[in-house]
Amino acid sequence: MMSESPVWQPPAIPPLAHHLRPALQARLDDKTKPQGSLGRIEDLALRLGLMQGTVRPVLRQPIVLIFAGDHGFAADGVSPFPPEVTAQVVRTILNGRAGSAVLARQAGLKLKVVDAGVAVELEPHPDLLPLKVRPGTRNALHEPALTSAEVTLCLQRGAAVMRDLAASGCNAVLPGEKGIGNSSAGALIYSALLGLPLDDCIGIGAGHRGAGLAHKRAVLARVQARHAGVCDPLGVLAAFGGCEIAMMAGAMLEAASLRMLVMVDGYIATAAALVAARLAPEVLDYAVFAHLSGDGPHRHAVEALGGRPLLDLGLRLGEATGAILAWPLLRAAVAVLEEMASFEEAGVTGREVVLG
Amino acid sequence: MMSESPVWQPPAIPPLAHHLRPALQARLDDKTKPQGSLGRIEDLALRLGLMQGTVRPVLRQPIVLIFAGDHGFAADGVSPFPPEVTAQVVRTILNGRAGSAVLARQAGLKLKVVDAGVAVELEPHPDLLPLKVRPGTRNALHEPALTSAEVTLCLQRGAAVMRDLAASGCNAVLPGEKGIGNSSAGALIYSALLGLPLDDCIGIGAGHRGAGLAHKRAVLARVQARHAGVCDPLGVLAAFGGCEIAMMAGAMLEAASLRMLVMVDGYIATAAALVAARLAPEVLDYAVFAHLSGDGPHRHAVEALGGRPLLDLGLRLGEATGAILAWPLLRAAVAVLEEMASFEEAGVTGREVVLG
Repeated sequence: MMSESPVWQPPAIPPLAHHLRPALQARLDDKTKPQGSLGRIEDLALRLGLMQGTVRPVLRQPIVLIFAGDHGFAADGVSPFPPEVTAQVVRTILNGRAGSAVLARQAGLKLKVVDAGVAVELEPHPDLLPLKVRPGTRNALHEPALTSAEVTLCLQRGAAVMRDLAASGCNAVLPGEKGIGNSSAGALIYSALLGLPLDDCIGIGAGHRGAGLAHKRAVLARVQARHAGVCDPLGVLAAFGGCEIAMMAGAMLEAASLRMLVMVDGYIATAAALVAARLAPEVLDYAVFAHLSGDGPHRHAVEALGGRPLLDLGLRLGEATGAILAWPLLRAAVAVLEEMASFEEAGVTGREVVLG
Repeated sequence: MMSESPVWQPPAIPPLAHHLRPALQARLDDKTKPQGSLGRIEDLALRLGLMQGTVRPVLRQPIVLIFAGDHGFAADGVSPFPPEVTAQVVRTILNGRAGSAVLARQAGLKLKVVDAGVAVELEPHPDLLPLKVRPGTRNALHEPALTSAEVTLCLQRGAAVMRDLAASGCNAVLPGEKGIGNSSAGALIYSALLGLPLDDCIGIGAGHRGAGLAHKRAVLARVQARHAGVCDPLGVLAAFGGCEIAMMAGAMLEAASLRMLVMVDGYIATAAALVAARLAPEVLDYAVFAHLSGDGPHRHAVEALGGRPLLDLGLRLGEATGAILAWPLLRAAVAVLEEMASFEEAGVTGREVVLG
């Protein structure tokens, strides 16, 4: 399934089909409604058409992919949850009772978990892709979380998953993540790639407050000092990890190269998008920012990437839950384009008025 | 079906089941996720429980109801569309190809149209409730749009629709509207009930700009002057209409009295909610504000009613389209409460950490 090599280059990402913009806009304007009155739903319809290179975009076999991995520095108490919770939650996702699984089922979305780097061995499951690069990252407090070969492997395996999905007909992916400690990796990535003070990039993650949050800040300051000066995207992934973030970045890049829609979830998924965009900015042409996280620092990365989140509901669960909750808006966009009558079809007077 | 009398009193609205708040919060906090990490989805779950008086709320037979009516002053060019478009769009809704119909189908929601006061005779249709109070309002530029007896009839018929729905098992309603000229009635209602200058309450409606908008402003200023001093909710409905807004207000009040969830759509639906809240403020306990309209003045009414819109997507189509697009968030809230595993069920460590 995979072609793995020590050399990694970002894939070529095709440009959007800008020549179709007038035709798409005309289709939208010809629907029986005041022009532009479906607001951002119309923007989404137009963007999907540009991504897919057609005035009749469709969403085929969309899938939620939860990339899971553990973090060496979780042992140092950067999260209020102990590291074993990663695997426990993965199992809860797979048995259909974690937040992502419940919401995906509700939304009619297929879901799979990718074992990118969970510390323990997970039992086989039909919805688990066993692509573990290593059993948890090394502790970035003392050494790089990943070797550059491991980073490459993560990127390649993420890409391979997308190629397999595309080959089976899928054209839209909702990546999410699970990994105790990964909001710490996220903060370090944000700080390094956005050039912002670390403290501005640290959120409450899984719920740290008070003394716990102060401890997280202190540990992360030491991690950052250990890797001072690292600010290139691949170097940042190696320094801070984790496998799930790196694999998600590789998946996002490959998805864009295959003209697939990428729904960007919250704080951690946006760290992956940030890495991906630094490697190939065109990835953003295929990205839709699902929501603004309830974890404050998320907005820094969203702004840096020029994202316009669809939802703002104070979500900070991760697991693609924001992407899943925004998904019906994408389906609505396609339905508007495909199913609404034109003024002529509906025999509605006044198109000329609206179009001026 | 209806008990119609010239005397009208708002129905008694039962208080929320506040005693269940701790139990509902405990159920939410016991789900395998960081506490509060599903943000406003958790708020919705809690509110539904308080409305329904149970820790296990359900959504039964939700329905989109499009109240349609015409406006006498539409003949004066307050809308860019001619008045006959109301009936044309109603027919397009009924044949499944207008925005509301397409989005409702996409969301798995049933939809019916209520003829509250369409100017022309509509052919019978299984999804059309023929409750016309009069064929369009009178022209408020010259006389009250409705008599007080007609206002009462609108309120009573809206209430009767809700009683019938509740009797058939429905516990959630998404009211919307269609009526050329009704953003003018909305502006006049906003101005009268919020005590704001008329110009601050006039939006672009169905797309008026430039000279058209200036004309709308001039006509509405004359209408307002004709009815100067009217600022009580029933008086405002009589002065400005329309049948669809009055019937929607009656429906909202009755729905709340029956402990049904009321999804409040955009600019016009919020005019109905404003009237309803002035008649019985407790109606707001059962109201969820679906979205902030792309029509600027909407925010004045939302703020006055203390609403927190779920979506902000620049929508200004009406027809309950915002309510429909927000609907999956309500379904998600119920699913979280009903289907997510507790920490104990999932065997996930760390509940005590999260609950501190």
